[in-house]
Amino acid sequence: MAADTQTPLFIRMHERDNVAIVVNDGGLPAGTQFQNGLTLLEAVPQGHKVALIDIAKGDAITRYNVTIGYALAGIAAGSWIQEALVQLPPARELQNLPIANRKPPEMPALEGYTFQGFRNPDGSVGTRNILAITTTVQCVAGVVEYAVKRIKEELLPKFSNVDDVVGLEHTYGCGVAIDAPDAMIPIRTVRNISLNPNFGGQTMVVSLGCEKLQPTRLFPKSIIPIQTQTQEQAEPDVVCLQDAGHIGFQSMITSIMQTAEKHLIKLNQRQRETCPASELVVGVQCGGSDAFSGVTANPAVGYATDLLVRAGATVMFSEVTEVRDGIDQLTSRAATPEIAEAMIREMDWYDQYLKRGGVDRSANTTPGNKKGGLSNIVEKAMGSIVKSGSAAISGVLSPGEKLTQKGLIYAATPASDFICGTLQTAAGMNLHIFTTGRGTPYGLAAVPVIKVATRNDLARRWHDLMDINAGRIASGEATIEELGWELFHFMLEVASGKKTWAEYWKLHNALVLFNPAPIT
Amino acid sequence: MAADTQTPLFIRMHERDNVAIVVNDGGLPAGTQFQNGLTLLEAVPQGHKVALIDIAKGDAITRYNVTIGYALAGIAAGSWIQEALVQLPPARELQNLPIANRKPPEMPALEGYTFQGFRNPDGSVGTRNILAITTTVQCVAGVVEYAVKRIKEELLPKFSNVDDVVGLEHTYGCGVAIDAPDAMIPIRTVRNISLNPNFGGQTMVVSLGCEKLQPTRLFPKSIIPIQTQTQEQAEPDVVCLQDAGHIGFQSMITSIMQTAEKHLIKLNQRQRETCPASELVVGVQCGGSDAFSGVTANPAVGYATDLLVRAGATVMFSEVTEVRDGIDQLTSRAATPEIAEAMIREMDWYDQYLKRGGVDRSANTTPGNKKGGLSNIVEKAMGSIVKSGSAAISGVLSPGEKLTQKGLIYAATPASDFICGTLQTAAGMNLHIFTTGRGTPYGLAAVPVIKVATRNDLARRWHDLMDINAGRIASGEATIEELGWELFHFMLEVASGKKTWAEYWKLHNALVLFNPAPIT
Ligand SMILES: [Ca+2]
Ligand SMILES: [Ca+2]
Ligand SMILES: [Ca+2]
Ligand SMILES: [Ca+2]
Ligand SMILES: [Ca+2]
Repeated sequence: MAADTQTPLFIRMHERDNVAIVVNDGGLPAGTQFQNGLTLLEAVPQGHKVALIDIAKGDAITRYNVTIGYALAGIAAGSWIQEALVQLPPARELQNLPIANRKPPEMPALEGYTFQGFRNPDGSVGTRNILAITTTVQCVAGVVEYAVKRIKEELLPKFSNVDDVVGLEHTYGCGVAIDAPDAMIPIRTVRNISLNPNFGGQTMVVSLGCEKLQPTRLFPKSIIPIQTQTQEQAEPDVVCLQDAGHIGFQSMITSIMQTAEKHLIKLNQRQRETCPASELVVGVQCGGSDAFSGVTANPAVGYATDLLVRAGATVMFSEVTEVRDGIDQLTSRAATPEIAEAMIREMDWYDQYLKRGGVDRSANTTPGNKKGGLSNIVEKAMGSIVKSGSAAISGVLSPGEKLTQKGLIYAATPASDFICGTLQTAAGMNLHIFTTGRGTPYGLAAVPVIKVATRNDLARRWHDLMDINAGRIASGEATIEELGWELFHFMLEVASGKKTWAEYWKLHNALVLFNPAPIT
Repeated sequence: MAADTQTPLFIRMHERDNVAIVVNDGGLPAGTQFQNGLTLLEAVPQGHKVALIDIAKGDAITRYNVTIGYALAGIAAGSWIQEALVQLPPARELQNLPIANRKPPEMPALEGYTFQGFRNPDGSVGTRNILAITTTVQCVAGVVEYAVKRIKEELLPKFSNVDDVVGLEHTYGCGVAIDAPDAMIPIRTVRNISLNPNFGGQTMVVSLGCEKLQPTRLFPKSIIPIQTQTQEQAEPDVVCLQDAGHIGFQSMITSIMQTAEKHLIKLNQRQRETCPASELVVGVQCGGSDAFSGVTANPAVGYATDLLVRAGATVMFSEVTEVRDGIDQLTSRAATPEIAEAMIREMDWYDQYLKRGGVDRSANTTPGNKKGGLSNIVEKAMGSIVKSGSAAISGVLSPGEKLTQKGLIYAATPASDFICGTLQTAAGMNLHIFTTGRGTPYGLAAVPVIKVATRNDLARRWHDLMDINAGRIASGEATIEELGWELFHFMLEVASGKKTWAEYWKLHNALVLFNPAPIT
């Protein structure tokens, strides 16, 4: 790789690969000669694959040292490998996988790195100080939105240590088959989101009254928002709109505002303090991926993941359909056979779920992925998995579950950006890393999102939406290691209060629950 | 029924019923004697059922002249019929149903009723004049929300004929199995919502660029927002955030605002004009139901439905799980055998859909329904169906489809309030009627919602959220006919621009799509 971006460049991920991707902005024309002598037989767009050698019909097409497909016709060296030439291999069976057999590389502890966080009574640490108003049902969303506006205008200015007020609106709670086998997923997701460390144990609840998801079902007695061990067990504060005491709409707003003020007073007492990097709980995901995702941004995230794990922090990677084709790598990296089995269980559940709907994991790829050079889900998956770095996998979460341990965790979620972000929020993340090749203005209200661009061109055009430019790896201006360290330091800054671009513009997307159970 | 609400009162729906419901606010104590001599053996809450005669174990419990269940124990006359005493009957099989065999009552045409509406080039009529900004994918929601705020502050005040600017945000568009068999439901829903008559054919689109639901897929060439027959076929205006021309976040906002201004100019030329009542397209539904829903509000809506049909208007009723147990009544009322078959097809699809998720139609009822006196889905369904009045059923829509005819239409949707409202909006409704017994602050951004309370107590407490009080029927202050006419006149006023309470407070809930296909 060279700093001069005019030089024709390709990137091969592994010495055994028979294809590589074109690096240059705008792609390269037919006749272009690379330094190794290869000449393009046709124009190849940026991020798309070129055959490095002649590939016979039926031969494996190899990238990341993995068969990403089979040639549907003979492909001469220097040809553009278009999607239509690549046959998707069948999904890896879930039997006879390698189990916990790979020794992870040496991971010396990384000490001395800290950030300024909000420590909670239960020991967790927030990166933001937010009043959350959760809801049992969508019926109350309009009222909560009205109340949040009033709280922001009339109360929030009086509490300078509180960053924001967020209504946790969602579409669950009624009109759903709440006793269906899969209903536990959305229910525990709503429950666990309200326990996110950024809410400081002060989450309040607005309920309608007649909904299926009653406050006592959302928060059974044993599960109380973040608390000290010495604190009395207390029910969360619930404002119920149908309470007989509410006469007129403004009485509902008054109830919500009075309850909010109580919690704002408590949240305002929180102060940032020095916390070790081990208190970071980072969720990583990608969206709007291109062929550079697996070459620049995701490897840099993978490097930072290793740094975080070495520092004793927690990192979650997710997106079932994007690891399905690399399941053998992951079961192999599991710290114990039980963890490998849990990973297989999650893949199998998702296989069945997709099958019930008449599709398979190949439904994942998007027009943008393909335009960006990703031929199919296998190629996309190989580029996605690298976000997980190289540490042993020390735990597995089912969708909506809350973390109970540190290290590198596989949190099973759909790849859907907002569902993945919602489920990682429920798991307890206090910092979110999002890599993108095509570009997305993604943001969350509850947790800061650091967006990493895979290409210089995107970073240039979206200069006030992308927080980190990993495109410099492709153009030779930075190494994966350098970017990984840069990202690691940037995470500590954002965790300490530095605003991301999404926060600067106040851009955020709605929570989206994963509800595989029926609507009624 | 008497005007004096202190007199102990019950309501029996049909002379053959062996149960009736207690009318009085707060219920009635043990020992209460009714005018017919019946004495309560125990206290019975308001809206709950009392046995009118001794019912033996295993005997049918009859309300609305329908078996709503079987007695699980002997029940003495004057006893409270608690939910636990009622065994749910099996669902009516979908074979051997009566088909189009019931002659509807005489329905003389009702002429001369008009409202002031916005007539569209395609002949449809809006009741509001709204700029809609639809979206292909949730990724753009934060940006659209930012832009809508700016448009409302900076542009809307210049266009006095335009009522509002609405971002049609939803959670579909990417991270979904877009080629799954059931994916057509959410896709056509998003498409058809943007064609709602209240948007005057001026809906614009914000797209990300790499999403699965590309603008050309959402709006194929043949389907263009409302147009005249003489108009040139024109693509809808699309702002694509990933366009290479967008440098920096504010350039995206500028693009959206410039496009919005173009459409605001056109919308501002619209004027209300006198339109016959036949241009009303009314969606009726209920939510937060109690035992009074089927006694007061829903019968009044049913009466108004008949008035609308007589006036040549369109009325949709919906909520599959709430008509499933009365399917024989509906197939019987179908105008043709084909319409009856279409209704059976929708029921069967939903039966299978629920079965795949491990539940059945009994998953519908809520804690609030039960608290309100509804023992099970059969009893709830009988009270729900009466909203449809007595006309012949002249058409059936599948979820997300757009209306093509007038009269009484069965629009198959889940009972979930927001999904039903979203699908009726997609069908083309320009006015929404929502009855509630427990109370809900329900509102929609695109279509005015008239809320009808089933009980005096709710209407009193929620005096500035409920638009019509049908509780007066139970207390003898008004007849069903009187309330039906009152509602009919109120509909014409609201259609002409009068604000509902939800509009006054600017309360509205998010669109919720029905997506039975998998997430990826
Ligand atoms: Ca909103
Ligand atoms: Ca991804
Ligand atoms: Ca994703
Ligand atoms: Ca209903
Ligand atoms: Ca409903």
